[in-house]
Amino acid sequence: MADRHWPDCARNLKGVILDLCGVLYESGEGDGAAIPGSIEAVKKLKTSDLQLRFCTNETQATREKFVAKLQRLGFDICVSEVFPPAPAAIAVLKQRSLRPHLLLHDGLVPEFDGVDQSDPNCVVIGDAAEQFTYHNLNEAFRVLLGLEKPVLFSLGQGRYYKETDGLKLDVGVYMKALEYACDLKAEVIGKPSATFFQSVLDDMQLQPHEVLMIGDDLLNDVGGAQQCGMKGVQVRTGKYRPSDERHPTVTADGTVDDLAQAVDLILSQRGQ
Amino acid sequence: MADRHWPDCARNLKGVILDLCGVLYESGEGDGAAIPGSIEAVKKLKTSDLQLRFCTNETQATREKFVAKLQRLGFDICVSEVFPPAPAAIAVLKQRSLRPHLLLHDGLVPEFDGVDQSDPNCVVIGDAAEQFTYHNLNEAFRVLLGLEKPVLFSLGQGRYYKETDGLKLDVGVYMKALEYACDLKAEVIGKPSATFFQSVLDDMQLQPHEVLMIGDDLLNDVGGAQQCGMKGVQVRTGKYRPSDERHPTVTADGTVDDLAQAVDLILSQRGQ
Repeated sequence: MADRHWPDCARNLKGVILDLCGVLYESGEGDGAAIPGSIEAVKKLKTSDLQLRFCTNETQATREKFVAKLQRLGFDICVSEVFPPAPAAIAVLKQRSLRPHLLLHDGLVPEFDGVDQSDPNCVVIGDAAEQFTYHNLNEAFRVLLGLEKPVLFSLGQGRYYKETDGLKLDVGVYMKALEYACDLKAEVIGKPSATFFQSVLDDMQLQPHEVLMIGDDLLNDVGGAQQCGMKGVQVRTGKYRPSDERHPTVTADGTVDDLAQAVDLILSQRGQ
Repeated sequence: MADRHWPDCARNLKGVILDLCGVLYESGEGDGAAIPGSIEAVKKLKTSDLQLRFCTNETQATREKFVAKLQRLGFDICVSEVFPPAPAAIAVLKQRSLRPHLLLHDGLVPEFDGVDQSDPNCVVIGDAAEQFTYHNLNEAFRVLLGLEKPVLFSLGQGRYYKETDGLKLDVGVYMKALEYACDLKAEVIGKPSATFFQSVLDDMQLQPHEVLMIGDDLLNDVGGAQQCGMKGVQVRTGKYRPSDERHPTVTADGTVDDLAQAVDLILSQRGQ
């Protein structure tokens, strides 16, 4: 186990944002499995005077179903604390009077039930997994090519993720495919988008320098948070790779073994 | 109908290369349909003293099946005159001792029958159409990610093409998807690759300035040929769009209504 690296990450801290998959739990068969010590770590944060939010790029289920899964795993967590891309996307669609054509995982579709999808004037893609068929991708492509000003929203821009039966292509790969096909640039909703992180900060009513992001993804969690003015700490669980600690452009403010260690350091530095 | 634009395209000419789809015929139901005047135009070129080759990015059928289709449409054409990407790819694989994992249209797979595909150390993708499933793309991705030096060959880099039932995503879109997923750059085999055009010139034993390329695709046919030192003429059939005639970076050496007009101009300028 490598040494922890934690210079002053808890100074002036008023809030913490946690990534979910790879920090609290590992996904896989059924509900997946909690990462050892993480259930207790969330409890400790909740009894501190720090504000706590959860920020995820999960787009395979509605927020309700997703939070129910985490509760079954033993986490003390509720829907209003969790920020996935879909509700943020719905807010943007309403704000800009856009009617989406959806290319999403079946589990996420109900989240968009209240959104007008007639005569679409934009496309929203998420991690559709098996729904990324040639037919469905052609359909999204034709909607875009038929628009005078094509708008493509991508719920995240991940390359791939790990499941129990192997690595799986993530939404970013299909975003790049449609970008090339239609010669356009997608608008990313989700980490590492600054707008997305800002919506969580707004909800906490805190300034970026008062908040620490803890995640397993160096670019989307740590790099994204730093771009926003927050500090970013990486855990050595989930999709962490040793090469992350010598990345050419992104350097985490701290690196620790897991969430349990991060929380112990935060609370001990605050004398709690 | 716009005016033809044909300054001196036939000077010093010793050979002609024709694109197929969009120049000789339009694809669609069954064998598709010959473009009016093109059967006669090919006949005229064959009775001239010019060398003639056909250069295509077709990757949905073996060369034999593909040429048989053109013969059924009425074209005087034989297998040895036609240059699609697959045989060029097979030559490269043998030269570099590479064993491919294939993601291709079912119709093209037999072309690779003689190629060792055990324990793959590269990936070859073509226009796989319905075979571009999430499962198959994941499989190609995992092969690439498992290699120390991942090599991806793409048979063309087209964005989309038109069939009778609408626009369809082409291989280039999936090439971009895998490039992003694996953080690599694919090697393109087919137009507009200079190596690919050069193999046709080698077969004709001609210098680039002695050869004229006629195609409907401004970037892949005309631009690719010009990059090689050939002249490039665009026909106003197939995927031609009026905006091609004011493209910011590629200007055709000539623009004509169709192949019949191009051939009449070539032969009249040569006094034939």
